[in-house]
Amino acid sequence: MVDKLRFWNDTVTKQTILNFVETVTDETNPKYVPSSERVATFDNDGTLWCEKPTYIQLYFAINRLKQMVEVDPKLLEKPAFKAAVQEDMDYFARLYPNDIPALMQIIFDTHQGMSQREFKELAYEFLTNVNHPRFGIPFKQCIYQPMVELMHYLRNNDFKVFIASAGGMSFVRTVSEEIYDLPRENVIGSNIAFEMKKIDSRIVLMRKPGLIEPFDDGPGKPVNIELHIGRSPIIAVGNANGDMEMMEFAESSDWSFLNLLLRHDDAEREYSYNVAAEKIQQKARERGWTIMSMKNDFKKVFTTS
Amino acid sequence: MVDKLRFWNDTVTKQTILNFVETVTDETNPKYVPSSERVATFDNDGTLWCEKPTYIQLYFAINRLKQMVEVDPKLLEKPAFKAAVQEDMDYFARLYPNDIPALMQIIFDTHQGMSQREFKELAYEFLTNVNHPRFGIPFKQCIYQPMVELMHYLRNNDFKVFIASAGGMSFVRTVSEEIYDLPRENVIGSNIAFEMKKIDSRIVLMRKPGLIEPFDDGPGKPVNIELHIGRSPIIAVGNANGDMEMMEFAESSDWSFLNLLLRHDDAEREYSYNVAAEKIQQKARERGWTIMSMKNDFKKVFTTS
Repeated sequence: MVDKLRFWNDTVTKQTILNFVETVTDETNPKYVPSSERVATFDNDGTLWCEKPTYIQLYFAINRLKQMVEVDPKLLEKPAFKAAVQEDMDYFARLYPNDIPALMQIIFDTHQGMSQREFKELAYEFLTNVNHPRFGIPFKQCIYQPMVELMHYLRNNDFKVFIASAGGMSFVRTVSEEIYDLPRENVIGSNIAFEMKKIDSRIVLMRKPGLIEPFDDGPGKPVNIELHIGRSPIIAVGNANGDMEMMEFAESSDWSFLNLLLRHDDAEREYSYNVAAEKIQQKARERGWTIMSMKNDFKKVFTTS
Repeated sequence: MVDKLRFWNDTVTKQTILNFVETVTDETNPKYVPSSERVATFDNDGTLWCEKPTYIQLYFAINRLKQMVEVDPKLLEKPAFKAAVQEDMDYFARLYPNDIPALMQIIFDTHQGMSQREFKELAYEFLTNVNHPRFGIPFKQCIYQPMVELMHYLRNNDFKVFIASAGGMSFVRTVSEEIYDLPRENVIGSNIAFEMKKIDSRIVLMRKPGLIEPFDDGPGKPVNIELHIGRSPIIAVGNANGDMEMMEFAESSDWSFLNLLLRHDDAEREYSYNVAAEKIQQKARERGWTIMSMKNDFKKVFTTS
């Protein structure tokens, strides 16, 4: 017999996943779900790739701040640029969730004023060539092998798999095909505004300092899932409070559903933290959602480890 | 030999389409395009389904105005509701493009204040049970058989086919799987805002009176294509001025491209008109885009005719 989730330990979690998929794909089962309705949505930060010591996209923004100072040293007068050059990570750690406007300003400063094409090249270059400070591997390789395997397993069972990330849609899409084998159009996320311009009679999409509503977190996830997919998921996978509404959306589906919440409890192989996850862990216990333990359920963590 | 486009006459247009697809799918050809980049985007109104005497969605809105008057007769004091009940089509014909705010108000009045689920049911019921005034078939059957066949032909050649409609995304999605065999998530269009609510601890998406920017027409099409697909099309198919930027977007692609512009020149089987299409027809002639003649290129028009 082929082991369908070989990067998972033989625990209750693995059995729960296998049972659910076998049930909803079995036409003779009363809980059968037709393939058109088999939608699975995955959060990205902390669910598919590592979000500690801080978000990968924030590292990208800090890297951009440094690059921008090289071009225009006067920017050093602004605190965020100064903190970036001095590698003062505490400065950035203090921003979330205490000073969201300052954090948004950093995103706007570093993610706009260029074309989509230029942004994608910068993001790809960063994700490929800059290493995680602890693991010493490129950021794009800091992905959880069991989760990538789970996405493949679901697709092999005629699930439509999407990412619903609070992070930048364009940022994640630059590598989604390479690292997750997931087409760009299956990645949903947050966006800053685009403006169509014509340069030398070619259409160019410029990135502007403004958010496209809604921000893809919390109550924004069901809205963006409806906009991009037009169906609620029957499997929702996340790790933080911002995934609560996405999981409640799955629970509100007309079909059988499975909510999977990843707990970061593996300080040795990754990190151990509950920050921004207490509420959803409490909810998961109340509602009987499946809590996955990185320590106990993951046979392997990173693809390279 | 199997006829790949049997609902098309053997014209230059058909040969142009076949040649293009054979070229870009031939790995030995210098113009080969890998399947991940084979994106085709189709306008909907006037390209895939009939848009005369007026937009199908406007008929839906008028139908909704009548339904709303039945519930609340005081609404008759408003001119749009009165015109709907009196079937004064001239009233509505005058709105576009002369009074867009009044037209938007009609859309907001009739498309919001309900859940997405309720809206989808109303839209599906209308498209299925209300007949086109001239053809006497349900609106959802007023689709062009050669275009549906073209979408299938492209998908069989590993194209990713999307609709990019100025019309309502949710409206078209209610029938896209049934009439076009196209998954909902492959339909892009215009949207009014959604608000997430919790009713009896279930997640419900309510429709609100506000547009999600950008409106999916003209310069909004490339923006929404980037948001939903993340790539420019290499085939763009349309019929009206609002499709110009989408076709210029295809032309701006790094790959070989094919722009197909449908001319409505068949008063006998459908309609003959150039309204809102003069500019793009002029552009097509200048740029050498392919102009399809409904009269000469379509062997059949509707699936039922």
